[in-house]
Amino acid sequence: MIRAAVVTVSDTCFRGEKEDVSGPAVAEMLRANGFRVDGLRVVPDEQTLIEETLIAASKVSQLVVSTGGTGLSPRDVTPEATRNVCDKMVDGIAEIMRAEGLKQTPYAALSRALCGTRGKSLILNLPGSPRGAVTSLGAVLPVVGHALALLADMPVRHDAPDSAKLNDKEFERP
Amino acid sequence: MIRAAVVTVSDTCFRGEKEDVSGPAVAEMLRANGFRVDGLRVVPDEQTLIEETLIAASKVSQLVVSTGGTGLSPRDVTPEATRNVCDKMVDGIAEIMRAEGLKQTPYAALSRALCGTRGKSLILNLPGSPRGAVTSLGAVLPVVGHALALLADMPVRHDAPDSAKLNDKEFERP
Amino acid sequence: MIRAAVVTVSDTCFRGEKEDVSGPAVAEMLRANGFRVDGLRVVPDEQTLIEETLIAASKVSQLVVSTGGTGLSPRDVTPEATRNVCDKMVDGIAEIMRAEGLKQTPYAALSRALCGTRGKSLILNLPGSPRGAVTSLGAVLPVVGHALALLADMPVRHDAPDSAKLNDKEFERP
Repeated sequence: MIRAAVVTVSDTCFRGEKEDVSGPAVAEMLRANGFRVDGLRVVPDEQTLIEETLIAASKVSQLVVSTGGTGLSPRDVTPEATRNVCDKMVDGIAEIMRAEGLKQTPYAALSRALCGTRGKSLILNLPGSPRGAVTSLGAVLPVVGHALALLADMPVRHDAPDSAKLNDKEFERP
Repeated sequence: MIRAAVVTVSDTCFRGEKEDVSGPAVAEMLRANGFRVDGLRVVPDEQTLIEETLIAASKVSQLVVSTGGTGLSPRDVTPEATRNVCDKMVDGIAEIMRAEGLKQTPYAALSRALCGTRGKSLILNLPGSPRGAVTSLGAVLPVVGHALALLADMPVRHDAPDSAKLNDKEFERP
Repeated sequence: MIRAAVVTVSDTCFRGEKEDVSGPAVAEMLRANGFRVDGLRVVPDEQTLIEETLIAASKVSQLVVSTGGTGLSPRDVTPEATRNVCDKMVDGIAEIMRAEGLKQTPYAALSRALCGTRGKSLILNLPGSPRGAVTSLGAVLPVVGHALALLADMPVRHDAPDSAKLNDKEFERP
């Protein structure tokens, strides 16, 4: 069973001013698709905090899904945090999410959601709205599953720079 | 009324060897769509000069539209200048412009036009040809309007890194 | 006649454990489309080595096509090497390759193949599978031809930063 972590990025949810609907919706969709959800965490829109959370989550979960913080507001920094902690960006997955969103609303063009790998984990940004999050996740789940299989099957090579990182204590999985 | 600035990036127009047709065409389209055009400026394809112009324009205009300098020539550096002065890139708008352009010509794939935010302003690159510029702008105007509304409604938070920048003298709006 | 170089990036082909099928297939397609293929080279998935090979190839060939190393494995670093040696990225060509690939398989979303310019040369990543490589190349050949014509016609301006690079010994063409 593939392990997944869900991270809701939202100032208002973090302060308890709004209920987190997107995080649980994403978690439910992941469970329905055979993932074991390690946990839901809510963090404010603070880049350093988001980065730390993504790093910690990627140590235990092969798939780390965030929801929120992908828009144009000065506080929306989830993509920036994601780029900072990823080894490789997978632009094609971001493109598919936007293309699928555009079928529903032209404003999907404003989502800056990214996807990338950190070690053997995949980090996937989803928009903050429950509907946008679920639509985006649904659009890429088959490809994400394939990506995770590829990442999991990968033999760890000790001479490779990325696998070297994977052998670091910081990246150790339980 | 939303304020817009138009910046034509072209060595030949700057040197007066060619008349600037794209800039006025873009300005006319903006006015027809309810923008107040603050001014048209023509700059040569010099990256530092383009950056300074985009920065200055974004201090007074919510929308800054450039035309030209998005191709493959060594002198085409508008996207590089744009990336340098933006806080956030909005890849989805660049994708839509290219997708729309591809309906007219496969060579639209060679446009490297970008879109991003600087403070509360949106900076949008358009191709240099009058037809390409107007096609690209038309393709994204509804989304651009929505993005500007989002950016304008944004409460400035003094604890946020981006809003901090906004409070800088450099970013002050009249 | 436009000169092209083909670079196969593959650990297993480099070690002779697998026959290089993609490189010759790409070379054949290029010849069939009127290119003169300067040579086929096979390199392992080592970023520095790939970068050196792309740089050397771009000194003599207007088009440098790589195949392989565009996936998610820790060893897949062709896009990273390509970005490092390019002056400008041409995102639209990468988008077209992925869009064309998606018509055959959703997993084309996982290709991280890039395209960019170095001096007056175009560097194009293709996926490692023979079918993926040929499909991607076929999808962009007309646009690539146009891009090369643009790059070849470009007058070298001695005051421009990029042309300055072109006059460097390092960039000299025979």
